[in-house]
Amino acid sequence: MSTSQTNGPAPRTLAWIGDTDGFLRLIDQTLLPTQLEYRDCHTVEEVWEAIKVLRVRGAPAIGVAAAYGVVLGMQPGFRQRWNDDPLPRLREVAAYLRTSRPTAVNLFWALDRMERRAAFLWPIVCPTEWLGGLLHEAQAIHEEDAAMCRAIGQAGAALIRDGQGVLTHCNAGGLATADYGTALAVMFRAAEEGRRFQVFADETRPLLQGARLTAWELQQRGLDVTLICDNMAAQVMKEGRVHLVITGADRIAANGDTANKIGTYGVALLAQAHGIPFYVAAPSSTFDLRLPSGDAIPIEQRDPREVTHGLGKQVAPEGVKVYNPAFDVTPARLITGIITERGLIQPVNEATIRTTLSR
Amino acid sequence: MSTSQTNGPAPRTLAWIGDTDGFLRLIDQTLLPTQLEYRDCHTVEEVWEAIKVLRVRGAPAIGVAAAYGVVLGMQPGFRQRWNDDPLPRLREVAAYLRTSRPTAVNLFWALDRMERRAAFLWPIVCPTEWLGGLLHEAQAIHEEDAAMCRAIGQAGAALIRDGQGVLTHCNAGGLATADYGTALAVMFRAAEEGRRFQVFADETRPLLQGARLTAWELQQRGLDVTLICDNMAAQVMKEGRVHLVITGADRIAANGDTANKIGTYGVALLAQAHGIPFYVAAPSSTFDLRLPSGDAIPIEQRDPREVTHGLGKQVAPEGVKVYNPAFDVTPARLITGIITERGLIQPVNEATIRTTLSR
Repeated sequence: MSTSQTNGPAPRTLAWIGDTDGFLRLIDQTLLPTQLEYRDCHTVEEVWEAIKVLRVRGAPAIGVAAAYGVVLGMQPGFRQRWNDDPLPRLREVAAYLRTSRPTAVNLFWALDRMERRAAFLWPIVCPTEWLGGLLHEAQAIHEEDAAMCRAIGQAGAALIRDGQGVLTHCNAGGLATADYGTALAVMFRAAEEGRRFQVFADETRPLLQGARLTAWELQQRGLDVTLICDNMAAQVMKEGRVHLVITGADRIAANGDTANKIGTYGVALLAQAHGIPFYVAAPSSTFDLRLPSGDAIPIEQRDPREVTHGLGKQVAPEGVKVYNPAFDVTPARLITGIITERGLIQPVNEATIRTTLSR
Repeated sequence: MSTSQTNGPAPRTLAWIGDTDGFLRLIDQTLLPTQLEYRDCHTVEEVWEAIKVLRVRGAPAIGVAAAYGVVLGMQPGFRQRWNDDPLPRLREVAAYLRTSRPTAVNLFWALDRMERRAAFLWPIVCPTEWLGGLLHEAQAIHEEDAAMCRAIGQAGAALIRDGQGVLTHCNAGGLATADYGTALAVMFRAAEEGRRFQVFADETRPLLQGARLTAWELQQRGLDVTLICDNMAAQVMKEGRVHLVITGADRIAANGDTANKIGTYGVALLAQAHGIPFYVAAPSSTFDLRLPSGDAIPIEQRDPREVTHGLGKQVAPEGVKVYNPAFDVTPARLITGIITERGLIQPVNEATIRTTLSR
């Protein structure tokens, strides 16, 4: 492993290839870290499948992929079939894409935005321009996401000091976004600013996003990363090796309660027990201010086979019962600050959240 | 999966086959839960290897295996070579076995006992009787371990009430001992007494003893077991599904600080955060009263490949740094009680420990 902290270029998580008749090319993240392969999605069904089976994952990247998915869903026989009114079909496409990953609020946010843009444009442009307008909107979501990553990196980088240790859980990196991530953006930016530090990446069972994706991304960019199993975080903290925790978020309620990958809540409790600050890095689109608290966030249950068979061979007895929640909710009281593209929210409460988001 | 809680017979973890010229037969636990296969150890080197690579694991079972290993080490050419004085060779064999697993205090305890017995017998019996005496001592350690399991089960069973949820980490079951375990003995005994309850088994990365062994053992005996990933314990506790935690121990210091499988300390912190009592179940042989506290317990570091490749395929990028401590130390202040074959130690401190152990 290279140990220099000069950031190299990283492969592009998502790219639209071509014009309105183009397609979405994405890194198949299920094959990492041993194979870097791209997958081309030519239909909305292929985008749905890619989101469903986690070929593309991470709330912002899912939003971008779904926006392009709307364009793909409106391509086939566009001129022939929807010269009258494409909006019912578009609403069908969006509704279909919403079923791919019910917890990701960015998915809903991006699809709502595509629907609004489609409805706005239809009465005022010709059909061909309308499809171009949809693609343009998807690309705007994509570019804004890239700018958001950079802004989050800038907002949080000062939290990491030279010689410190940072622990992260799951993957909130470039693979989860259109650029260099949310939680990892803070680390990439701190490295760009010349600070040297050590990152501990929880492997993040059952799907090992930390081992497969976070460790890979940090290694690709030359950061000093050490992989640990989830159950080692407490010991690493006890040994004084961790000075702050930064994770991503899947959905944040109005009071700051944060849904994120299963295990995040436990890490937050362990950080509290060791007096270590716990930060969440997430774009403003991750906030769902209609939810007063995290109690209302539904917890997706996933296939037991992810736990029993997900690693290449069967590791548990046939027929054993499995509990496999995809997410947990970290209460705001355990969160030191939330790093957004609009600045650092600290302390975390409804008032500070609303103030920062209205900037 | 059967859901009745009538305990069935379980395969024997360890058995000595034959007389002084016999051999040790053990379940190869590295093949569970998909294959139940026995491995016959005819030499001390085979016993050393079985302990080293975790074919046999769990502090009490390691002690029993090592005691039989001493007998095997004294078998070859016994009459020819050591008619003069077998004790130097025996000390060599014991020293060699001590290197197989440096953290397991029962290993040292069992080997010390075999050495003492050997030295006691040599001046007073004929050589053939001497080897028989060693085998008899190993069998005594084995039988005492079985009785100890039953006594721990009885001492702790009342802690589990009908309808509760119990969480455990790693494997402290029959596979770890000569009979039905330490932490699991408490559950087996509570089930025998007619109470119904749910067990949550942490899978216990990196080697998945919880998924492979604990879930298998509980299922074999018809208990209601649910497998979770280590990072789900906090969520299961938050949902109110866990009323107590019971784990095993590898080594307990005079003040009650407890070394056990990596992740135990984190579970204890999570239990504390949720107001859930945390119990350790262990025989008195696990206590090392020469150690004033857990600070002096050495933490074994294991092969990084257990984390990166241990599950049948490579799950982390080539060359990534890994931190892989085998154990952690749970401070006594987080331990509600220690369940021993001599009774329940509660509260946990040096005075209560010494009182109970001197019974």
